[in-house]
Amino acid sequence: MTRYKLTIEYDGQPFVGWQRQDNGPSVQGALEAAVTAFCGEEAQVQGSGRTDAGVHATGQVAHLDLVRAFEAGRIRDALNFHLKPHPVAVLSVVEVAADFHARFSATRRSYRYHIVNRRAPLALDLGRAWFVPQPLDEEAMNAAAAHLIGRHDFSAFRAADCQAQSPIKTMDRVTVTRSGDDIFIEAEARSFLYHQVRNIAGSLRLVGQGKWEADDIARVLAGKDRRRAGPTAPAHGLYLTGVAYD
Amino acid sequence: MTRYKLTIEYDGQPFVGWQRQDNGPSVQGALEAAVTAFCGEEAQVQGSGRTDAGVHATGQVAHLDLVRAFEAGRIRDALNFHLKPHPVAVLSVVEVAADFHARFSATRRSYRYHIVNRRAPLALDLGRAWFVPQPLDEEAMNAAAAHLIGRHDFSAFRAADCQAQSPIKTMDRVTVTRSGDDIFIEAEARSFLYHQVRNIAGSLRLVGQGKWEADDIARVLAGKDRRRAGPTAPAHGLYLTGVAYD
Repeated sequence: MTRYKLTIEYDGQPFVGWQRQDNGPSVQGALEAAVTAFCGEEAQVQGSGRTDAGVHATGQVAHLDLVRAFEAGRIRDALNFHLKPHPVAVLSVVEVAADFHARFSATRRSYRYHIVNRRAPLALDLGRAWFVPQPLDEEAMNAAAAHLIGRHDFSAFRAADCQAQSPIKTMDRVTVTRSGDDIFIEAEARSFLYHQVRNIAGSLRLVGQGKWEADDIARVLAGKDRRRAGPTAPAHGLYLTGVAYD
Repeated sequence: MTRYKLTIEYDGQPFVGWQRQDNGPSVQGALEAAVTAFCGEEAQVQGSGRTDAGVHATGQVAHLDLVRAFEAGRIRDALNFHLKPHPVAVLSVVEVAADFHARFSATRRSYRYHIVNRRAPLALDLGRAWFVPQPLDEEAMNAAAAHLIGRHDFSAFRAADCQAQSPIKTMDRVTVTRSGDDIFIEAEARSFLYHQVRNIAGSLRLVGQGKWEADDIARVLAGKDRRRAGPTAPAHGLYLTGVAYD
């Protein structure tokens, strides 16, 4: 067996999510079908984590074991050939040690949440960003986001069906920046709770609109009660931008 | 009559182009239908120029005359409401003088041509950029582009069915920059010949691949022969980014 690490980009719109499911096409399923079409092997493509229906990736990472060894660049090109017409692209393939694990070896995950903040609805970014027509104060959002950095109990920003054993996570980065009408929330941590970034984005929007003060985020965080945090921001604004390994 | 200036964003993929045509949906047609749905008037939406099927815009400009006067912001919101589900958004509406003309008053048009230069095909940029897998040298492309700046006879980069009276145009800017895998060709001029930016992009690609030297662009330009220039780059990499007026 040879293990390969894949870095993957995808448009989440046509998929039920990363994970193979019975109710529709998944990114994992598209990749596994491409592997079989390429070399006949029925190998599992193990991702660094799931992404929900509609969530995009510019840097998802997965691993794959093949009985027959191939040159890594050949695997990349062959998978991309067989992935058509799915909006999934294998950016790179590298051979890794047998103990590399896309999920368990990951030391940091990076997400970007993209808000388009303008009066006009989305044309080019339709399905790729969250349209928020009310003016948002990105500096207030960034000040609020700073309260989330560090080690905290994130129960207030955790989905009800989250399967993580502990609600305690360490955020290495949560920043909010604006470029014209585009607002980007960047979040980095070893791992995240289910819906954590989208729940944070939904609360930061309330700060941006002036409905919450920046300090309200700290209060909600300390309260550990999901019902006091803002609504979950939509999936289509979220991008998994990278996964780091030691 | 009151004249309004519209700034418009669109995804060119589902359209036969800007101009109303019998063979399919157009951006102009979508806008004119939205005007009628909003206020009952059958007004012409006059663009700064046509864009081809598949070409996008982040800053197309058009004008519109309405018998009944409305507050400009109300027109913007109403048109956006009635434009759904077309990927067309009216970014702004402002009232202008009766002698303002979206096409004839324009003093500068700006285009961006987007190339994604990597081995892996496009997922998130599918239909939004030109995928070029061969490594491109953007510095050589930029050096070649400099030969095009200024007043020249652009017959070599003009489509056979171009209806402009003269092939002489003055390029104020033609630059090539790279950000990661993204290469952007930016071109600015008072006006362009038909397919001029796409033909320039197709020739600059040959320079980027090393098939042409930077000086070959000057030689082809001087030769004024379309058959000596590179192939026309695809429509879906091109964006009309802005139109300026005095």
